[in-house]
Amino acid sequence: MAFEKVTRSEDYSKWYNNLVVNADLAEHSAVRGCMVIKPYGYAIWEKMQQELDRMFKATGHSNAYFPLFVPKSLFEAEEKNAEGFAKECAVVTHYRLKTNPEDGTKLIVDPEARLEEELVVRPTSEAIIWNTYKGWIQSYRDLPILVNQWANVVRWEMRTRLFLRTAEFLWQEGHTAHATKAEALEETTQMLDVYADFAENFMAIPVVKGVKTENERFAGADDTYCIEGLMQDGKALQMGTSHFLGQNFAKAFDVRYTTKEGKQEFVWATSWGVSTRLMGALIMTHSDDEGLVLPPNLAPIQVVIVPIYKGQDQLDEISEKALGIQKELEKRGISVKFDNRDTHKPGFKFAEWELKGVPVRIAMGPRDLKNGTVEVARRDTKEKEVLQIDDLPTKVEHLLEAIQNNLFVKAETYRDNHITAVNTWDEFKDALENKTGFISAHWDGSGETEEKIKQETKATIRCIPFSAVEEEGKCVYTGNPSNKRVLFAKAY
Amino acid sequence: MAFEKVTRSEDYSKWYNNLVVNADLAEHSAVRGCMVIKPYGYAIWEKMQQELDRMFKATGHSNAYFPLFVPKSLFEAEEKNAEGFAKECAVVTHYRLKTNPEDGTKLIVDPEARLEEELVVRPTSEAIIWNTYKGWIQSYRDLPILVNQWANVVRWEMRTRLFLRTAEFLWQEGHTAHATKAEALEETTQMLDVYADFAENFMAIPVVKGVKTENERFAGADDTYCIEGLMQDGKALQMGTSHFLGQNFAKAFDVRYTTKEGKQEFVWATSWGVSTRLMGALIMTHSDDEGLVLPPNLAPIQVVIVPIYKGQDQLDEISEKALGIQKELEKRGISVKFDNRDTHKPGFKFAEWELKGVPVRIAMGPRDLKNGTVEVARRDTKEKEVLQIDDLPTKVEHLLEAIQNNLFVKAETYRDNHITAVNTWDEFKDALENKTGFISAHWDGSGETEEKIKQETKATIRCIPFSAVEEEGKCVYTGNPSNKRVLFAKAY
Repeated sequence: MAFEKVTRSEDYSKWYNNLVVNADLAEHSAVRGCMVIKPYGYAIWEKMQQELDRMFKATGHSNAYFPLFVPKSLFEAEEKNAEGFAKECAVVTHYRLKTNPEDGTKLIVDPEARLEEELVVRPTSEAIIWNTYKGWIQSYRDLPILVNQWANVVRWEMRTRLFLRTAEFLWQEGHTAHATKAEALEETTQMLDVYADFAENFMAIPVVKGVKTENERFAGADDTYCIEGLMQDGKALQMGTSHFLGQNFAKAFDVRYTTKEGKQEFVWATSWGVSTRLMGALIMTHSDDEGLVLPPNLAPIQVVIVPIYKGQDQLDEISEKALGIQKELEKRGISVKFDNRDTHKPGFKFAEWELKGVPVRIAMGPRDLKNGTVEVARRDTKEKEVLQIDDLPTKVEHLLEAIQNNLFVKAETYRDNHITAVNTWDEFKDALENKTGFISAHWDGSGETEEKIKQETKATIRCIPFSAVEEEGKCVYTGNPSNKRVLFAKAY
Repeated sequence: MAFEKVTRSEDYSKWYNNLVVNADLAEHSAVRGCMVIKPYGYAIWEKMQQELDRMFKATGHSNAYFPLFVPKSLFEAEEKNAEGFAKECAVVTHYRLKTNPEDGTKLIVDPEARLEEELVVRPTSEAIIWNTYKGWIQSYRDLPILVNQWANVVRWEMRTRLFLRTAEFLWQEGHTAHATKAEALEETTQMLDVYADFAENFMAIPVVKGVKTENERFAGADDTYCIEGLMQDGKALQMGTSHFLGQNFAKAFDVRYTTKEGKQEFVWATSWGVSTRLMGALIMTHSDDEGLVLPPNLAPIQVVIVPIYKGQDQLDEISEKALGIQKELEKRGISVKFDNRDTHKPGFKFAEWELKGVPVRIAMGPRDLKNGTVEVARRDTKEKEVLQIDDLPTKVEHLLEAIQNNLFVKAETYRDNHITAVNTWDEFKDALENKTGFISAHWDGSGETEEKIKQETKATIRCIPFSAVEEEGKCVYTGNPSNKRVLFAKAY
């Protein structure tokens, strides 16, 4: 492993990039801003997909698939949405290559194969989906429509970082249609709750639920709800959003339904999504200078067994025991890898599985064989203990639960210690620079003030927390009256 | 339901399109040649994905994800591959839209945001993947690489049909790298066997395994193995391909490895894929004039329960029983829908579930309540029987197995009756026109002959079956010597 040793305190950004590449999660591709998600990284993403998909289905949603391309005329139908994404659209203009007549070998774009109408590679699918829903919805009987899509989307970002911001990324986007505003609002909230549940109970990341300010709202939404996490370097990361779209897309695409009473009404909409960006959040919340730390609920390999042996006979003996342990653990739904490679030494394996964040490592040597024991090490605290093989299944099961819980508590403690309430502009700047994390402060509600604060400090309003209490206060920047604190932070 | 009544014998093609749309499987989108896969259709595709994914993992493969875009210079590196796909490539040339300065509202492609190098939307991913593998492979220890990708691809087709041929489609593409030719060949065969296993045991479609002629080979492959199915209208459909790519891509991208002995060798490659085209095969193999017929192993809903009642009291009584049945069946892993909608009559529901191909329908009325019985109808044969509720779980389990088996046997009988061995050109034309199906005939091995036959009859060589016996013969078209029969057919 060429794991370049850069610690978090030395250079958090470099540490992150090294970790992503060296733990075999992802790498940059030959295509500007696009990444390759490597098998180990993709296995974690698959675990996320499985859980989220289960949660979506449990709340009544079905999957479907809509085209990758959006004709320009549809794309521009909802003006705010179009305006918000126009600057980062990859555009298909031609549908054929041909041999270059000049050199006869290389290919060029065939100028005769120009599309009549350009196609936008979807940066998000509201337009193509609402154009489709128009054909699906006539009456109140056709509602609600509760559909999700797992797909790739493209947003031409100029400054990219693996998982956190890439030109192409993988995500899911839910798109629902409802008869009433109340029902759409309820859906918006429900899906935010699903995301928060997933973040906290699977990713072990505590999140703040809240609503975005108008400046930070999804283009085309009436309201954007979000979950915000806090990374180890004190920067916030938006982990998921759920949008109440009002009737904006229904109006842009003329989607109406007949009510029970025979009236024509526009349909109400939501959309909601999380992406491979969650991988970035997962890495940055829990990992340490030795590498990735994975919460057991999302680890593709929960337990690795490493044999320590001299010669084939000892390996055979250990293998027999190890395979028995593997079988017992797998019976309880625990995923286990027995690393019996003869090409690498135990020390190398220890470091590799540490780098890859496997929650529990079991080592087994000749003395263990004699004593009926193994050495069990947990990745999060690096504590080790010697356990009887007979006790292993139950103990490992509990250990995995303990690790999952410990990671959450640790992240929560860090997060709670990094929410600083301030009342003056000096306190604001001081906390932002010296303490980092979320700054809880009064704000006068104006977009202009928000923008000025951003210009001066790079901090943005992450959200107006749902849990914010009503209190009299003065905007930390203008002194104008405010009745609620909002959360500021520098963010990814 | 606006199920326009067109029978297969009246117009097979129209019957197919109506069925796809009316059974809520897919529909045309606003994007030329691209389809929307609707929730019910997507649920079937998800079942296919799950099974295939399980099979890929059981044979040692992992999933990963590679970019949607291929820079033109990489795309053209493997010349034959590039030549084969150049004519159907969607090309991204720009990365930004801007407001039209002339009218100030509509968007236009920003001429200043022209890409330095055009990006091809992947029609297949060998180029981008082998360019990536170059960085992954140094030594024999890095081999084999056994990776699969679930993705969307785009091939700009001029004549499209839902599922069978669309500009964008969903598929999986396996891309493996090996140290030796023998190992790569073994992989090519193994994955073809996986496809055949899936086709026969899940889709209930018998397939012929064989090798493609040079004319029909994948562009860039040394050999293409395939599985070919036969549809009800006597036309063949290529259901999956597994390519032995030799060292072509390794040479194009200079991917070498150091052997145990310290020598530098080019890496050997395979690729293999199946796509949403399988949905077309599934539909066309089993369905009838009343609608879709799904093999139980791929049906999202295996059993539907329809209550027949007057008034809420009766519905309540039936519901209690029905929910009990549902629970018992679900315990055995059977997926059940209790259709208690009060907006539709039983007759309507019967027709709808028939159209949607649910394998088993259970109806329950007041008399059944009294007798402790239900009426069970199977979708494939339309047979009905009255069964005791107590016997239901076991009987339904057996019924589902029987239906799965019956569909396969029926398709196999049809297929076997439609393989016609011919020895003269007149017999060939006669069988092709009047009997349809596969024509087993001698061929002289020349691409020119193959092409002439295609021009004259529209029949192509579907494959040289692996099971073909060595026998002396004369080419049905030229009379030249041949030592094996090949399978001709008109094909999708």
